This record gives sequence, C-alpha cells and structure tokens, in this order.
Amino acid sequence: MLETIATAYPYNKEAIIIICEEIINVRFSDDEAAVVILDQTLLPNEAKYLKLCEPEKLCEAIISLRVRGAPAIGIFAAFALYVYAQKLNCDCFESFSSEVTHFSTQLNSARPTAVNLSKQLHRILRLVSSLRASTIPSIKEAMRQEALQIQQEDVLMCKAISEHGQTLIESGFGIMTHCNAGPLATSQYGTALGPILLAHSRGLALSVYCCETRPLLQGARLTSYELYRAGVDVTLICDNMASIVMSEGKIDAIFVGCDRVAINGDTANKIGTSGLSVLAAHYGIPFYVCCPSSTIDPDCLTGKDIEIEQRSPEEIKEMFFAEPVALAGVKCYNPSFDVTDNNLITAIITEHGICRQPYSQSLKIMCNEDIR
Amino acid sequence: MLETIATAYPYNKEAIIIICEEIINVRFSDDEAAVVILDQTLLPNEAKYLKLCEPEKLCEAIISLRVRGAPAIGIFAAFALYVYAQKLNCDCFESFSSEVTHFSTQLNSARPTAVNLSKQLHRILRLVSSLRASTIPSIKEAMRQEALQIQQEDVLMCKAISEHGQTLIESGFGIMTHCNAGPLATSQYGTALGPILLAHSRGLALSVYCCETRPLLQGARLTSYELYRAGVDVTLICDNMASIVMSEGKIDAIFVGCDRVAINGDTANKIGTSGLSVLAAHYGIPFYVCCPSSTIDPDCLTGKDIEIEQRSPEEIKEMFFAEPVALAGVKCYNPSFDVTDNNLITAIITEHGICRQPYSQSLKIMCNEDIR
Repeated sequence: MLETIATAYPYNKEAIIIICEEIINVRFSDDEAAVVILDQTLLPNEAKYLKLCEPEKLCEAIISLRVRGAPAIGIFAAFALYVYAQKLNCDCFESFSSEVTHFSTQLNSARPTAVNLSKQLHRILRLVSSLRASTIPSIKEAMRQEALQIQQEDVLMCKAISEHGQTLIESGFGIMTHCNAGPLATSQYGTALGPILLAHSRGLALSVYCCETRPLLQGARLTSYELYRAGVDVTLICDNMASIVMSEGKIDAIFVGCDRVAINGDTANKIGTSGLSVLAAHYGIPFYVCCPSSTIDPDCLTGKDIEIEQRSPEEIKEMFFAEPVALAGVKCYNPSFDVTDNNLITAIITEHGICRQPYSQSLKIMCNEDIR
Repeated sequence: MLETIATAYPYNKEAIIIICEEIINVRFSDDEAAVVILDQTLLPNEAKYLKLCEPEKLCEAIISLRVRGAPAIGIFAAFALYVYAQKLNCDCFESFSSEVTHFSTQLNSARPTAVNLSKQLHRILRLVSSLRASTIPSIKEAMRQEALQIQQEDVLMCKAISEHGQTLIESGFGIMTHCNAGPLATSQYGTALGPILLAHSRGLALSVYCCETRPLLQGARLTSYELYRAGVDVTLICDNMASIVMSEGKIDAIFVGCDRVAINGDTANKIGTSGLSVLAAHYGIPFYVCCPSSTIDPDCLTGKDIEIEQRSPEEIKEMFFAEPVALAGVKCYNPSFDVTDNNLITAIITEHGICRQPYSQSLKIMCNEDIR
C-alpha cells in the first residue's frame, strides 16, 4: 500500500522521502503493543515519534494536539482502542465490551467538536457488538483489522477529495488556506491541501498564502512546512493579514478543511475560518470547504447544534512564547472552532464530488452516496 | 500639568500610580541631554526605561517599536530632534539648519506610514526656519519648548477625543478594540482607548474584547495591560476569534485608532483593522475610528495614496517565540498596516467632534477646525 501511495503521491523524490516518513503519522509499533505518532506539537523544529500505550497518554495525545486533524484523530482513536483492548485479560464478552466502551468514552471526550473521533469509535464499538459470539482473541484481531482499514480508506478518500477539488484550480491561481488540513492531519494528501498538492504535482503554477492560525499556529508550523517541503510557492501570513492579501487581488480561491458539517451546510472548522468566509464574500472570492463525507453529521440540523470546544488561556498567553505576552490576571476567550454560515460557502468538496447550494439537498445526496 | 492630568485621569488610586509612572512614556532626562522612554517591547513583563541620545539609537527606538503609537512617535521625534540639535556646535544658521534637517529625514524614514511623525518633524523644522534671525541657543530653546508644547497638546487632544467618543458608549456595552491606542501610544487617555477608559471611570459597565494583534502583539502586551490595570473587564482574544465573538452578539461597538486618514475617509491602521471593519459590517456592528485631526492627510486623496510599510519575516516567525514557528526557508508577507474603506467606517472621532459620511465633506470641515 505504501509504495502505491508514495508513487502516486505528488511530491518530488526528495520530498517524498521526507513526507513519507512523516505522513505515517499514526501507526502501530512493531510489536503492535503501542501506537506510534509523530508529535505534531514539536514541528517544524523537531520530528519526534512517540510510542504510546498507557490509556492516559493515549488520551493526552489527543487533548494536547500531539495528534490532530479530524481524520487523523479518528484513525488514532481506532488504533488506540485496539492497543487498549489487546492488553485486556477478560474472559467474558461483557467485561471485555464494557472495558472497551469505557475507554472509548474517555477517548471521545478528549475533543468534543471533531465528529470523526466519535464516528470511528462507534464503528469499532459496533464491530465489537456484532462479534458477541466470537472469541475475545478473534474480536481483538477484528479490531486491529478495522483500524487499519479505517486508515486505508482515509488515504483513498483524501485522494478522491483532491481529484474533485483540483478541478476548481487553474494555473496562476493564488490560494489561501487556514490551519492544517494536509497529509499530517490525515493519512495522505490531506483534505484542503490535497487539491493544492495535486494541482502542483500536475504542473499548475500556484501561490499559496497560509494563515498562521493562532493560537496553536498549525498554519505556520504544519501547513507551511508541508507545502514548502512539497516545493509549492508558499507565503506565511498572520491571520489578521488575510483582508489586505485578498484586497490586493492576490487570492483566487480559499480552501479550508472542516471538523463537522451540519446538514444545512454550516461547517465547524478551526477558529478563524468563519472570519475568512466573511472576507471572501466581501472581496468576491470563492470559498471551498474540503472534507470526507463522514464529517457530515446528520444529527446537526444547523451550526447551532455544533458544540464548540473551549480551550485554556495559556494557549493564547504562554504557549510557544519565550515569556508570557499578557498579564497573568488578564482573562482569555479561546474557542477552538467557529461555525461558517452555509451562505458563505461556495462549495463543499467530499470524496463523492462537489456539493453546492442548496446544501440541505446536495449534502443529503452525498450522505446517501456514502458507502459506509 | 501632571497633577491635573493625574486627578482628571479616570483610574482608581492604585492604577493612577502605576499608569502615571508609565504614561510619561516620552520625556527628557533631568539634564535634558537625552530622551527617556518606556521600552514598550518589554511590556508586560518588564517596565524598563531607556535613556537615548545617540542619533542611531533614537532612530532604532522608532524602527524597533520601543516607542510606538502614532502620537507618541510624533512627540518622541520632536524630543529627539531637540536632543540632537542641542549637541550641535554650529556657528551659523545654515549649517545648524542643514544638520537638523538631515537628522529629521533620518527620523522620518524610520516609520513611513504614520503621518504624525512627519507632521511633528515639519512643525519643528518650520519653527527653525522662522527663527533664521535668532541666535543658535535661542533656536535650540524654542525647539525644546515646541517639543513640550506638542506633548501637552496631545494630552488635551486625547481628552477631547475621549469625551466625544464616550457619547457613543452605553452602559452594558461589549466593545472590541485592536492594537494599542491607549495611554502608552499617546501621552494620556489614548485615542481608541480614551472613550473606553472615560466611560469606565464614569461608572458605565463595559466588557472589552482586545485582539492580540499579531505579529507584534500590541493588543496582548499593551492594551490588555492598560485596561486590566485600569480595572476594566477585559478579555484577550486572538485576532482570528473576532468573527465568532461578534457573531455571538458580544460586541456593540468597535473602537480603533489610526495612523493616517485620507480625505475621502479611508484610514490606515494596524494590520487587521480592515478585516475587523468587514466583519463589523457583516454583523451590523458600528465601527469607530478615533484619531487626532492631525492624522488627516490632505495629500492623500484615497487609501491608495497611503504607503504601507512592509516589515521583516522574523517578526512573524521568530519574535516573542521560544523557537521559530516556521522553517527558515518559508517566505512571509508582513504589511504593518492595512487600509479600511471609508464605507465600512461608521464614524471618525477627532478632538473636534464626530465625523460621519460623506467624509469628503465632514473631514474637510474638521481640517478647517484644526487650530494648528
């Protein structure tokens, strides 16, 4: 599988070597007793792999964003659940299932906004339930296979999103992107970066503006890293520079990923996305959201139903800085996501194709297309 | 003068002591051979005063934003020009004037966007020209008096802006502000923060959201510091959180300062301001620009005539951080200002009153009001 990916993957040889090492951002250790991840909090200065097996460390990796990006979190959770289950010494199905469900709940609470996390966990739990009549060792093996299958499906899905999205890009385009929805956030290609990387590999000349994405700087640390390594002409800007860059006519399209889509087309994505969509509408620039169809949540009627995760003030005042940038007593408001109104989204691109308004209809068709 | 300011100034007693030490952010040393400034790059963690007399260090203080805020820079430049002139050993007017003009040009090139800098320098140079028949010592003394006069005028002007602006604020308001246009940027009160501080001192309940203002974090380091010290309920956010905060109905008005106003009402202010104005229009929130009338530049017909200063990539990738947040090879675009379209500005508030559309008329009246 990996050779196929590496060959198909739109990087030059040098970049393939670097990226291929790093895109295996979630895998089993050789003895399959641990999940190995690339610690994304240390990029771009250090590429350090962590071997995680203790339940607390597996949860902490999600909470602290060592593994991040909605698809990657879903894959990681499936791997983590297997690693946890493998060590259980239960004789009966009930106690095994109960333990697995308990740890699944812990994992799920680590990031409330990303639907992939709960979706992949439920997929594994459904599988476990369906195997009630099997032996515990065979259930464990089925969980392992399912986790690997989830990862493989993600690669193919990102490839399909990239192909659809690439049709919206012309040579000479200036493209803006926010946060990180590249290979590090998925298993390969990425969602929002997929169309860009594919277009670049096919020889289209692009200038990509990458918003640094405060407070966690995923755009600076991860996206500009991935694009630079891939040889794409990338320029890093602070989030508040998006308006001037758009006003100067430098941007022809905006591509972002997303963490959850309501069935009316409202989308939750990294904080700052909704502001970009308002600017895009003001300056007349197409605004594209790229995501797997699994990101569409039929339980969310509108963006109002999407829970927005609130994070700590330290991320704003202290994280990454040599010393605090505000007084200890100053309050912070730190929502990790915001919701983009469906009216401001030009198209939502999934592995099945390109959805346009009215989303209440087009997303329904897309969900029915979903093979899962 | 200082007692009067301290008494009038809307802080509680403890805050007055702290703020009064710091708001004398530009003054002469006791022997008047140097300019003493509070190094704003070290706030909020350290309140360090610098004694500057060498020409290079005086220029560097402006370039490196040790002294910043359009009015404060103008005052500093007038003080710096006197300190420089004082040391000149010229016998004739021509060589004295030529030396002073030369250093003025150097100071002026340190920050091209802020009109106050060139305006105050020209004011001193005009004074020097008008004193051609005087002795060099008396010209030097006149330069000293003029610099002090410029500072005193700024205090009164900020007070007047604050009074006008405060009429736009009601108790219970949520207010957003960007960058720093408070006492540290001026001599007292501030421009954008003046109405807020005055309203707070008069007992109006306010919640202020302060954008951190990347890359130099003036909002986090300076504005949240000033507001917190003054006892105002302040919440720090990242710039990209402005959209969600506005969408949640938390904001009733936005107050920002500005560095230059074209006669059609387009305004240049710290990078990120134009984006906030677009968001404000989208969410139906009044957007107020506060500035001294000296900021209106009759030579600028529209925002297109305003030169936008470009700054170094290191400010985005390295400054304030414990380690670089992007690869060394990644390009950055780092405009220090952007231009807000006059159509997105609800009112421009100067010491003479509140200007509204059409600005081509109201600003002209305001300029004619200008006593200088």
